[in-house]
Amino acid sequence: MNVLGTVGPVRIVGTGLLGTSIGLALRAGGVDVVLSDPSPTTVAVAQDVGAGRVESADDAEPALVVVAAPPDVTARVVAAELAQHPQAVVTDVASVKGQVWAELVAAGADLSRYVGSHPMAGRERSGPVAAVPDLFFGRPWVICTSGETADGQEAGDQVADGQAGARALQVVRTLAIDLGAMPVTMDTQEHDAAVALVSHVPQIVSTVLAARLLQASPAAVGLAGQGLRDVTRIAASDPGLWTSILAANAPAVTQVLGAVRSDLDEVLGSLSSWAQGQPSSGALAQIARTLVDGNAGVARIPGKHGGAARTYAQLSVLVPDEPGSLAALLTLIGEIGVNLEDLDLDHAAGRLVGVAQLFVLPEVAAHLEQELTVRGWKVVP
Amino acid sequence: MNVLGTVGPVRIVGTGLLGTSIGLALRAGGVDVVLSDPSPTTVAVAQDVGAGRVESADDAEPALVVVAAPPDVTARVVAAELAQHPQAVVTDVASVKGQVWAELVAAGADLSRYVGSHPMAGRERSGPVAAVPDLFFGRPWVICTSGETADGQEAGDQVADGQAGARALQVVRTLAIDLGAMPVTMDTQEHDAAVALVSHVPQIVSTVLAARLLQASPAAVGLAGQGLRDVTRIAASDPGLWTSILAANAPAVTQVLGAVRSDLDEVLGSLSSWAQGQPSSGALAQIARTLVDGNAGVARIPGKHGGAARTYAQLSVLVPDEPGSLAALLTLIGEIGVNLEDLDLDHAAGRLVGVAQLFVLPEVAAHLEQELTVRGWKVVP
Repeated sequence: MNVLGTVGPVRIVGTGLLGTSIGLALRAGGVDVVLSDPSPTTVAVAQDVGAGRVESADDAEPALVVVAAPPDVTARVVAAELAQHPQAVVTDVASVKGQVWAELVAAGADLSRYVGSHPMAGRERSGPVAAVPDLFFGRPWVICTSGETADGQEAGDQVADGQAGARALQVVRTLAIDLGAMPVTMDTQEHDAAVALVSHVPQIVSTVLAARLLQASPAAVGLAGQGLRDVTRIAASDPGLWTSILAANAPAVTQVLGAVRSDLDEVLGSLSSWAQGQPSSGALAQIARTLVDGNAGVARIPGKHGGAARTYAQLSVLVPDEPGSLAALLTLIGEIGVNLEDLDLDHAAGRLVGVAQLFVLPEVAAHLEQELTVRGWKVVP
Repeated sequence: MNVLGTVGPVRIVGTGLLGTSIGLALRAGGVDVVLSDPSPTTVAVAQDVGAGRVESADDAEPALVVVAAPPDVTARVVAAELAQHPQAVVTDVASVKGQVWAELVAAGADLSRYVGSHPMAGRERSGPVAAVPDLFFGRPWVICTSGETADGQEAGDQVADGQAGARALQVVRTLAIDLGAMPVTMDTQEHDAAVALVSHVPQIVSTVLAARLLQASPAAVGLAGQGLRDVTRIAASDPGLWTSILAANAPAVTQVLGAVRSDLDEVLGSLSSWAQGQPSSGALAQIARTLVDGNAGVARIPGKHGGAARTYAQLSVLVPDEPGSLAALLTLIGEIGVNLEDLDLDHAAGRLVGVAQLFVLPEVAAHLEQELTVRGWKVVP
């Protein structure tokens, strides 16, 4: 029985992490799902984990086609699906949208039945084995209202005139809601600029910084702390995938990266003039201002549960680095009746005692500190 | 009773986070500690928390003076202490070393009794109230053998010729060991270049990226994920402190930042040529190579407990976002007998279920996954 708003059959083309996860969630809701992938092994695995059934010659016409192919082949696959299934709404989940739209326009595709979308979800692992039905739960799911104009920018739920059809938009919106995602309507240009800023340029910056460590002495790298670890964590991402993402979004990435480069140039100019003992007027003030802007910028990033960033009180508690000790601490916190908003484990290099950073609502912090201290935990305020 | 190698009295000048933490650890080991600070309140707090006693007119001559002043006044204070206490070894803990050395040379200070050092330790909070005696435990403590030549680079424990005296080096080395730190011997130039690379330039890069978010629409910022959060976390650092750190290390920071800027320029050039449809030869290969270098660079960063970076197996477990549920999971893991190497809590935007990322030794991952699944936890492999 179909308990979701989405009407099947849904045809999923590309059964990697995203396609298979979509299939799993739709199947769990009783929707008929047909799976297609160039790799017979991949599609068989997707069927085995319960994401739907492998396509066959006598399948009924799909009501919705979801293309979950690599970004550089997405437009070609979307065009083929639009042609092969003339009644179906077709969407894709590629992380760059403008290029797909442009290629579809060039190919003369029927854009009234196409809606580009981009679920902001992923995992470190890939492929159908890594798929989970709740991959999209609570995540933004961008739905692109139009290809080339920026009219949709303020449109919210409205359909941009003469672009993607109203029915197609509604079908894709229903899909996103069925999967537990939060639909966000955007113009493709706005989308591509946004992901350039919040995802693609951060990847490049992290990568370039990490690459600099290749030349460093072991002694220098040995001084690294948590700050460097955080800034470079995503530099461990897959080079092949990211080359194609960056290429596909090259115009928007170029624009944001150019701005970042200019900002770096300003800091570099100020520091360089200071280093040479001939500081330009206001050199240090410029650096201080950039640091203040950085404070303000990072404060804009949404916090837990998608709300505005909120400042929690932070308590540091020393935890012996042995099985059970963190559990004992957290059990105690539960008994005290305090909800932990977030938790960081801080293992200092070479020490056998870890520090648990507890983030709690400011109003309960003093109570928690007192209760933990009374019970013999070492709380560093 | 003094159970440490350090011989007192130790005079600590500047009783902020670092100075007070050093005092706490030395007092715990029975060393006589005298405290000095321009602020009467600050030094009184340091005495109250047990870091030593406030200086008085009839104090015995110190054997060791530790200057823990802000970087921009460190050299002046060190020079004054060297002059006032002609028998004492004097060290400082400023995070930039070359400028201090240069100023001391210019001031004609007795460099045979001075050793610059830099404990790689800190906290988000500052001041004597935040001080803890084990702040330095297991952290690298850089000890600078010489000021201007790079001869010390390969010297390890050796004393660079005619620079810091052997006795002074031994005294500071003993201090570092007494505080539980790992002494690392470096030339000041090597130190300043290293912290420029692993700390100062990452700060600038994170800041500049975060500052770009100021101009972004709420919708764009709403698409942010964990990657952006990680890259920009340190952009929340104190602008005043960082302005003075960057200014003090301007020559080394300029060099590393210039290299990063050039690397960004290369990526920008490749992407820009690709965006304009006239890709330079090997444009995408250049981007892919940078991404691969980033992979290799981040792999060089030491992991937990100061050892080489180690790859742990990772299990994702769904945890209801309510008091006690994470504790129950960790209690169970303890009962299963598996040691958690690291733990990340991943609260997806807007969802009421969190994901706990468990990092364990690869050889126990399958066992843990099985045991958790049997007990009804939802493990996402």
